[in-house]
Amino acid sequence: MKNLIVASTSTVYGGSHLDYLLEEISHLFSNTEEVLFIPYARPGGISHDTYTEKAAEAFSQIGKKLVGIHTFDNAETAIKNAKGVFTGGGNTFVLVSQLYQNGLMQPLRDAIFNGLPYLGTSAGSNICGVTMQTTNDMPIVYPPSFKTLGAIPFNINPHYLDPDPTSTHMGETRETRIKEYHTQNNIPVAGLREGSWLQVTGDTVILKGEHSARIFQQDKEPFEIEPGTELGVLLS
Amino acid sequence: MKNLIVASTSTVYGGSHLDYLLEEISHLFSNTEEVLFIPYARPGGISHDTYTEKAAEAFSQIGKKLVGIHTFDNAETAIKNAKGVFTGGGNTFVLVSQLYQNGLMQPLRDAIFNGLPYLGTSAGSNICGVTMQTTNDMPIVYPPSFKTLGAIPFNINPHYLDPDPTSTHMGETRETRIKEYHTQNNIPVAGLREGSWLQVTGDTVILKGEHSARIFQQDKEPFEIEPGTELGVLLS
Repeated sequence: MKNLIVASTSTVYGGSHLDYLLEEISHLFSNTEEVLFIPYARPGGISHDTYTEKAAEAFSQIGKKLVGIHTFDNAETAIKNAKGVFTGGGNTFVLVSQLYQNGLMQPLRDAIFNGLPYLGTSAGSNICGVTMQTTNDMPIVYPPSFKTLGAIPFNINPHYLDPDPTSTHMGETRETRIKEYHTQNNIPVAGLREGSWLQVTGDTVILKGEHSARIFQQDKEPFEIEPGTELGVLLS
Repeated sequence: MKNLIVASTSTVYGGSHLDYLLEEISHLFSNTEEVLFIPYARPGGISHDTYTEKAAEAFSQIGKKLVGIHTFDNAETAIKNAKGVFTGGGNTFVLVSQLYQNGLMQPLRDAIFNGLPYLGTSAGSNICGVTMQTTNDMPIVYPPSFKTLGAIPFNINPHYLDPDPTSTHMGETRETRIKEYHTQNNIPVAGLREGSWLQVTGDTVILKGEHSARIFQQDKEPFEIEPGTELGVLLS
């Protein structure tokens, strides 16, 4: 049975890395002391080692050891043996390219569908959707495909940002971008504000955190859902 | 000899479509009454017809007729026969996909290098760079390549936006995104603020408009250049 936390961001304003989620993470990974970390998204281009150290610091606060997947000779075996996986944020194009390059997209999907506890933040959440096509990131590398894990039956827009009514900037708002997405695609999109996350248990997907989320579906007006809402049925 | 206007945006805050650029456009297309319009970027998903009508309205103010490339039986021939081309903004992924699908990337490049007067705004400017990899757009379709026209020897980030020091949003700033780009690529990037444009005459590229532009190069600190600066030599 699937068991995931799909979070909009690793860090909320004024907080430290993962602090607002530590209790949930502790619960998610209650069956293991060691969690496999996928640092491929490389926020700001930092190295896999540096990123792993940073994330390990947060995990140490709940008595968990985090081990970078890049330290294993065989990454696919590392996923198969893992009792829990965390994929951190950064650039989704870099993350997806590296997952494909290392032949890990399918093994990771299989493991998640077989019940591997999984935590994603930002780019690591984006890849839980059907495709990465509602990422906010720059296409700094060319991935072999935009298809991702499909651990949930819709797409994620992490760091969802409401339009700023005082803005004089003429670039597209996030809502405009997602509506453009739906001129070309029919997969629903959940815009997750920072501090929100989805708790996935089997086919049940529940919005958690303090904020509402904004739901976009092709040819429909977007609408808000409150924390506690079940999205799995709503959007499948 | 190349002859282009590469503009950050079609519309500045408080203005109407293309109004701030009309004099320059009139000069660029002084040799022709009819300009070929490439509406493929489809801002907000609008149809090619609707987009062409909108752009034609602005062009009519300077006595020019704008004709959509989608109205020709053979788009490649339309480019070969054109005395001027305008590519409007919208979604860069959609634009680039359609250019490749219709086999137009190379013919358009050839025509520009042979002196075809070209106007680009936003996505239509993005494609003047070496690659589209510093677009701000969502990857709503999967193009066969990120390579673009290379009419200038660097990349464009249109609608360049300075970091907001009061923001509590934890998503990446534009500067962070472009720096991430340079962890994977070495092509320089010009961040063009809204209201700025590049005037390209042969290999000479001059920053125009009222704003400075921000220049990003791999392993260097970004810096500002003032209007009137020549970028062709600086960044080639």
